Amino acid sequence: MSKAIFFHAGCSVCVAAEQQFATALDPARYQVEVVHLGEQKSRVAEAERLGVKSVPALVIDGQPFHINFGAALDALR
Amino acid sequence: MSKAIFFHAGCSVCVAAEQQFATALDPARYQVEVVHLGEQKSRVAEAERLGVKSVPALVIDGQPFHINFGAALDALR
Repeated sequence: MSKAIFFHAGCSVCVAAEQQFATALDPARYQVEVVHLGEQKSRVAEAERLGVKSVPALVIDGQPFHINFGAALDALR
Repeated sequence: MSKAIFFHAGCSVCVAAEQQFATALDPARYQVEVVHLGEQKSRVAEAERLGVKSVPALVIDGQPFHINFGAALDALR
């Protein structure tokens, strides 16, 4: 089981991506954790370490993928 | 079974996204088609109609998600 983390900030772009994208991953292979960076600002640094530049983003096996363009991380500090 | 189309242009960003992202979708729910727009320029118009602005992009249930930022569609005409 691999780990995937979906970072978002509660914006409409983020929610749409979460509903139609993060939930589309194979549940037999991926455990998906959803992190709302607006509510969990303590995890912004973790997101940065993983290479996340903007949200929504999905980190799969430690590799970040930025989806569309919502908010830059700097807006969430 | 829903249809997902992964549009790319053969760049390294695209290939990484395809390997770690498009293949992570649940095979029980999604049939994934991979389209190389550099080789199939006739499908650029189709990608545009689906709302694709850049590649790599994944269209799930008709909704486009742009992943990272590779090449703008204008570069592929």
